[in-house]
Amino acid sequence: MHPYRLTISCADRPGIIADVSGFITGHGGNIIESHQYSDDSSGMFHMRYVIDPANLRMNAEDFQVLFLPIIERYAMNFKLTDTQKKTKVLLMVSKIDHCLKDLLYRWKSGELDFDIPCVISNHPDLKEYVEWFGIPYFHIAVPKDEKGKETAFNATSDIIDKYQPDTVVLARYMQILPPWMCAKYQNQVINIHHSFLPSFMGAKPYHQALERGVKLIGATCHYVTENLDAGPIIDQDIARVHHYHQVDDLVRLGKDVEKSVLSRGLRNHLEERVLVHNNKTIVFG
Amino acid sequence: MHPYRLTISCADRPGIIADVSGFITGHGGNIIESHQYSDDSSGMFHMRYVIDPANLRMNAEDFQVLFLPIIERYAMNFKLTDTQKKTKVLLMVSKIDHCLKDLLYRWKSGELDFDIPCVISNHPDLKEYVEWFGIPYFHIAVPKDEKGKETAFNATSDIIDKYQPDTVVLARYMQILPPWMCAKYQNQVINIHHSFLPSFMGAKPYHQALERGVKLIGATCHYVTENLDAGPIIDQDIARVHHYHQVDDLVRLGKDVEKSVLSRGLRNHLEERVLVHNNKTIVFG
Amino acid sequence: MHPYRLTISCADRPGIIADVSGFITGHGGNIIESHQYSDDSSGMFHMRYVIDPANLRMNAEDFQVLFLPIIERYAMNFKLTDTQKKTKVLLMVSKIDHCLKDLLYRWKSGELDFDIPCVISNHPDLKEYVEWFGIPYFHIAVPKDEKGKETAFNATSDIIDKYQPDTVVLARYMQILPPWMCAKYQNQVINIHHSFLPSFMGAKPYHQALERGVKLIGATCHYVTENLDAGPIIDQDIARVHHYHQVDDLVRLGKDVEKSVLSRGLRNHLEERVLVHNNKTIVFG
Amino acid sequence: MHPYRLTISCADRPGIIADVSGFITGHGGNIIESHQYSDDSSGMFHMRYVIDPANLRMNAEDFQVLFLPIIERYAMNFKLTDTQKKTKVLLMVSKIDHCLKDLLYRWKSGELDFDIPCVISNHPDLKEYVEWFGIPYFHIAVPKDEKGKETAFNATSDIIDKYQPDTVVLARYMQILPPWMCAKYQNQVINIHHSFLPSFMGAKPYHQALERGVKLIGATCHYVTENLDAGPIIDQDIARVHHYHQVDDLVRLGKDVEKSVLSRGLRNHLEERVLVHNNKTIVFG
Repeated sequence: MHPYRLTISCADRPGIIADVSGFITGHGGNIIESHQYSDDSSGMFHMRYVIDPANLRMNAEDFQVLFLPIIERYAMNFKLTDTQKKTKVLLMVSKIDHCLKDLLYRWKSGELDFDIPCVISNHPDLKEYVEWFGIPYFHIAVPKDEKGKETAFNATSDIIDKYQPDTVVLARYMQILPPWMCAKYQNQVINIHHSFLPSFMGAKPYHQALERGVKLIGATCHYVTENLDAGPIIDQDIARVHHYHQVDDLVRLGKDVEKSVLSRGLRNHLEERVLVHNNKTIVFG
Repeated sequence: MHPYRLTISCADRPGIIADVSGFITGHGGNIIESHQYSDDSSGMFHMRYVIDPANLRMNAEDFQVLFLPIIERYAMNFKLTDTQKKTKVLLMVSKIDHCLKDLLYRWKSGELDFDIPCVISNHPDLKEYVEWFGIPYFHIAVPKDEKGKETAFNATSDIIDKYQPDTVVLARYMQILPPWMCAKYQNQVINIHHSFLPSFMGAKPYHQALERGVKLIGATCHYVTENLDAGPIIDQDIARVHHYHQVDDLVRLGKDVEKSVLSRGLRNHLEERVLVHNNKTIVFG
Repeated sequence: MHPYRLTISCADRPGIIADVSGFITGHGGNIIESHQYSDDSSGMFHMRYVIDPANLRMNAEDFQVLFLPIIERYAMNFKLTDTQKKTKVLLMVSKIDHCLKDLLYRWKSGELDFDIPCVISNHPDLKEYVEWFGIPYFHIAVPKDEKGKETAFNATSDIIDKYQPDTVVLARYMQILPPWMCAKYQNQVINIHHSFLPSFMGAKPYHQALERGVKLIGATCHYVTENLDAGPIIDQDIARVHHYHQVDDLVRLGKDVEKSVLSRGLRNHLEERVLVHNNKTIVFG
Repeated sequence: MHPYRLTISCADRPGIIADVSGFITGHGGNIIESHQYSDDSSGMFHMRYVIDPANLRMNAEDFQVLFLPIIERYAMNFKLTDTQKKTKVLLMVSKIDHCLKDLLYRWKSGELDFDIPCVISNHPDLKEYVEWFGIPYFHIAVPKDEKGKETAFNATSDIIDKYQPDTVVLARYMQILPPWMCAKYQNQVINIHHSFLPSFMGAKPYHQALERGVKLIGATCHYVTENLDAGPIIDQDIARVHHYHQVDDLVRLGKDVEKSVLSRGLRNHLEERVLVHNNKTIVFG
């Protein structure tokens, strides 16, 4: 079965669930999974339905048209996904390869179910590895000067626009995207940062962690926004470290946390379990 | 606000959500929290709604009557709780006091919201401590012979029946309840076992753990059934142990896990987040 | 058996272990536990020995005298503890009671083995509770003006000096100690901060955590220094939070982490497993 | 620097540390890391030293000869390793590839430092993948009949003997080694079992876990002994599961735990941090 997934965010008021579930049932659909969260502080209603369309008397396009009156009644932010169509995830990477290779393993083994239209990197190092899988690899060096950066990110954006991915994953891509790219692909670009944010933002978080003498290190999966390492957090996790661990050990222990947090966060994102409101995420787990 | 909580289990088929939410909305209620789980393997539908009754045009009794046609349509296992009425939790304990004292702290500080009609123990040790809180304490010794046991458990059951608790918690009560009591209070008696079940069932699990040389110990919160330590599991957790830990250390480390798992499991149970089907739990978290 | 504990820090060079262990064995002592850590980056050697003194042909005072040549040879920072003498831990608290009550439970039940000479608080709220255990309780209000603060902390310091504790625990004491107190009791004052530092330093960390939308909250046990929440970290831990958790939930979930981290850190400190160098701790676990 | 590693197990009595450290220092060695554990219940002394041999006035062979009197004095079980010589780890696998590929990644990236003389499998599936790394791959089918099994395991043992590995890792090798092989390579064969033992021994542990309705699943890294899944445990870890997880989910979540536990346990084993006594491990971490 390829179910439909429906996510809704709107100002909360009585009747939304009855109206939406009534609409679905009335057209022959069966709700097989549902999550709801009404946030008192923001007054917002968030919902995610998974629908068995076996007996649904309309296709996804018709659904959207027929559902319009309800959307308008509640001024809904709304998304309907027919899971028959595979999601496209574009990967970006620099030189450090553990997150990229981990995602490729999970993709190849079928654990994560999406298409990879291409990989973009500011280094040529992983070209051969990526192309071995039959995936196009674009090497776009990012110079240090402003002018060069602009050219590089224009080229990067052109490739993204050409392949039309649903999601871009920065799998340890060590460049800061320009604000206009963050705005253009809002809530579509996922980054893995190698600290438990907001601790140790910016560069070299493991060095910062060692310097501070923390007993935990971590990783954070978040949507990229204009403010560096300050976007909505999707998932975080930690590993315990000891006084005898040096930076190399932190990097090693951190790699496993990064892989785990990124793949888990991406999975939730792809299954449309993640809704964003006011720089925070609702994650229906 | 004192919301209503509605839990439903029944064979899955289309229309349940629409019918239930339509009923609630139609009578002026607002669904502020909802969880649903349709279990493919059993074909069962499980749901939990939290309802704001501010504008509900019926009280809890009327709700149950008016809702009857829907219950019958789907042959629902159904429970409606008006949270205005406080839950009654009866505690049972032997000599080891950390779980009891932890629950009393959480209760006294308002973290866990219920009434404690009384404490029953097979030992007198904690009498003074419990009565200091103004809670009646019944000491019912449990002899080793069958006849004596029967008398003791009849007396225990009489006290339970007199105080009519919603839930009984075995907070390290080191006696095995007779089958007839397990049957009588099905899914109402919660036990904390000091291992990650099914490892180390029965007596002295920490000694068993040390003997086996495990690197993790744990605790399990579960409903009591006739089969010792084999009832539906509500929650579990673990702590890491090392080769230099002796039984005393395992007991010490385990205490914190037991307190944490029992209070967390009890909290979910009291908020009616725990549904039971076929010796397994659905926990809407 | 009441073993001796010996901790040593000095610049690393060959022969320390042979000299120290030779000295102990030569005088009839048996080393039953040993930890060592040589830190490449600082060039420091750190060691902890537990010694069975049953056949030791000298008492603790003589040990110190006879050991002097070795201390001088290596310019050692050195501490010898005869565990026969109980450690004194002075507790300080404001109004929030979970850490204090948790420590009192662990102390009363014998899990943590020390004497509590007295409790100091800037509020009278916990007086009755503490005195019930036969522990003196000093209420010293801390005014907001500088002059009043100075008077209050002088009085506080006088009480500390009168009772001569080995360690002071700030069990959710919500005042900032003046720099001169931090200096006077260096590495003797342990604080529990309710975030995984360095995230959310200062006031209201749970509010900060909710605002940032983190998926983990935590607690940190550290030595108090002049720089607020920046002292050497002894232990940290975290709890997972979800989008539906409000500040109240974070406080509730955090309480358990705070209790756990503080009691664990204090235990390691009291067993002299924690050595400090350059604002970082070595924890021999 | 390529340090020496020295591990010792013997009956505990005073003087061991002084004698051993005196010997090392006397010959110009510097102890840069030391762990010791004296087990009261067994009366055994266990130790691990890391020695900087820069100024050592003897090589590893001479060390063993000159150290002989001390070995004999204490009837020591003793091992000296010159880390200049790379460890050889032979991998065995069936069809499920995540543990093998994870180890190959950690090996290739230099995170785990050993040589892989060959891979043995009872299936041909991973031949191409393994040979791509330049590693010989032996496919030895294991028939179901006793006679065929015997032939297969004789052939397997011949390959092991030919390549003389220090350690054999069963990276999800789904066959049970015959008792004579377990005896022959005692404490040299490491297995990863996909449950937190002793729960769910034998086949299909994830199915067993789902059936029992546990809230945690896990993995265990242990030395292989004649008793199936009952050998000395090196490491364990768990992942949290929920009611909506099916066997596929448990398998998916479990894979990450298996990889993590196996690589961590293997790392400790290779660094000679793991000593075995009476079916339990001492892990100097």
